[in-house]
Amino acid sequence: MKIVLDAMGGDHAPGVVIDGAVMAAREFPGTEIVLVGREDVIRSELARHDASGLPLSIVHASEVVEMEEHTDAVKRKRDSSMRVGMRLVKNREADAFVSAGNSGGVMAAALFDLGRIRGIKRPALATVYPAAPVPVLLLDMGANTDPKPEYLVQFALMGTVYVERMWGLSNPRVGIVSNGEEADKGNILVRETYPLLQASGLNFIGNVEGKDVTKGMADVVVTDGFTGNVMVKLSEGLVSFLVKYLKAEFTAGPVNKLGLLLMLPGALAMLPGLLLLTPALRRIVKRMDYAEYGGAPLLGVDGVVIIAHGRSNAKAIKNAVRVAKEAVESEMLTAIKDGLQSSSLS
Amino acid sequence: MKIVLDAMGGDHAPGVVIDGAVMAAREFPGTEIVLVGREDVIRSELARHDASGLPLSIVHASEVVEMEEHTDAVKRKRDSSMRVGMRLVKNREADAFVSAGNSGGVMAAALFDLGRIRGIKRPALATVYPAAPVPVLLLDMGANTDPKPEYLVQFALMGTVYVERMWGLSNPRVGIVSNGEEADKGNILVRETYPLLQASGLNFIGNVEGKDVTKGMADVVVTDGFTGNVMVKLSEGLVSFLVKYLKAEFTAGPVNKLGLLLMLPGALAMLPGLLLLTPALRRIVKRMDYAEYGGAPLLGVDGVVIIAHGRSNAKAIKNAVRVAKEAVESEMLTAIKDGLQSSSLS
Repeated sequence: MKIVLDAMGGDHAPGVVIDGAVMAAREFPGTEIVLVGREDVIRSELARHDASGLPLSIVHASEVVEMEEHTDAVKRKRDSSMRVGMRLVKNREADAFVSAGNSGGVMAAALFDLGRIRGIKRPALATVYPAAPVPVLLLDMGANTDPKPEYLVQFALMGTVYVERMWGLSNPRVGIVSNGEEADKGNILVRETYPLLQASGLNFIGNVEGKDVTKGMADVVVTDGFTGNVMVKLSEGLVSFLVKYLKAEFTAGPVNKLGLLLMLPGALAMLPGLLLLTPALRRIVKRMDYAEYGGAPLLGVDGVVIIAHGRSNAKAIKNAVRVAKEAVESEMLTAIKDGLQSSSLS
Repeated sequence: MKIVLDAMGGDHAPGVVIDGAVMAAREFPGTEIVLVGREDVIRSELARHDASGLPLSIVHASEVVEMEEHTDAVKRKRDSSMRVGMRLVKNREADAFVSAGNSGGVMAAALFDLGRIRGIKRPALATVYPAAPVPVLLLDMGANTDPKPEYLVQFALMGTVYVERMWGLSNPRVGIVSNGEEADKGNILVRETYPLLQASGLNFIGNVEGKDVTKGMADVVVTDGFTGNVMVKLSEGLVSFLVKYLKAEFTAGPVNKLGLLLMLPGALAMLPGLLLLTPALRRIVKRMDYAEYGGAPLLGVDGVVIIAHGRSNAKAIKNAVRVAKEAVESEMLTAIKDGLQSSSLS
């Protein structure tokens, strides 16, 4: 299997991307990582590693789509790492594409060079919402800010197939984000989509409120890309606020600092017990670490495309490659095409 | 000053509402609380308290709007506590209305009996978003799921006046929730509202993303009622998930339990230090306690209406009365009317 990795994409590219590529090449021996980007830059970054013998190759691309660049640039920059990488997938020279670059850019490049799956009206960016007792696939995260009801039904179908194939969950519960549980709640879009989801043959459980998402009431949660984007960024912001706020409250002023100092001997006495809690602590950190999730699949384009967080570190890049690898192995793309045909939702 | 309290509204009504009324009457001596609802029920609940001499009065209303009831019921139930209470405000027999009941019902009753402020196209439910370094007034929270751009501009004006009057903040920063910071980001509604907000004369700072809300980047944050509702309920759900999740991880299995046991002596040794941190801890609990915020103002109706959380305890009811009292004292309603006239946004 060959996975294209956009060496130029991400806030910390290319250094961190190459680090992640080396990690992935070591961890997934049967998988060749095709690094696409400026060859000289990639070579000098690779020189920092002992990468000899690892299944890494380079394909040169002279242009770079910058993190804040408009999608117009993607159209123009035909020799950018994104466009060159997508064409490798299009021409069956590689099996999947991974980038931590400008997500609008990756979506545009995927649409230009791979196109949509026949019958799919719009692609959707899916993400794993981690703050729930079970993993929840939330889509769309921002590909479509003003979707039509029939797009949302296709998102639900693609999400269902993804969760079945990738997580081994059969007949996953599908919900639609709304402002109330009752069937008549929702904005116009939700109220129009509701009966279509009921008739879709999917395991539709109805409206899910914001709090229901964090309760894991549905496995696949569909929403418009505007709301999905706000939900994910608000959640990230809220967790980061809580951490900063608690820290600030406890360390502000001399009295608090003295209190913390006085607690030190006790804290040391707690260490042996804490040691026993290490596995639990490690699970919590792992759970809350976005890097573990690797990347968000762009569903509906005719190829496996995984978009990693712009802030990705090497581990996140490696895990995005893992997600791409699993998506190829599970034949997720064929399953979506089959699902679409048999469901008559195209 | 007289404040109407809907004795029949809330998940724990009437008991908890009466408890809150007694607390409020004790704490705010110059304020008469007018309890509206079934007189016999209110009398028997009041009998549990030593309420003699407190400024509490009762106005009988024979009907009750149930928590899950449709707004049609509000129209029909002309002698419900909500409708009778609103008419007291309408007829200047009371200065404000407070309810922890069905929020859709309260909004409907307010529209039937108080009507909108002249020139205001739609009312908006505003809430204090607490998970930010500064308080943030978020509106709309669910009164309008599909507003027009001009409604959002009026929400921004009403929010600005509210924050100026109630929080003493001059020229507060106004943002609109979007899926990106750039001016061209947003769904159709946001992109159409953006130039109107720029021309509004308000202190408009542009788009705010989900994470920007938790950073306190704006004092007044406007959004459609669908997105606002999802944001608030998602935030509540996320905090409650985190608490449950951390607790479950640390207490699951015998090894974790042994670990916690072994930490006990150390924890005891930490107590003196912890004592010094008590004020910080208390501030944190207070900050995270929705009951401190009391209630959400329904802005744009021709009267002071405060909607408390359905789950309100007595303290939350008391604080909702406090918010109503402050809104009356600050002449918030007149200020909105004046602001509307001078801004030509009506």
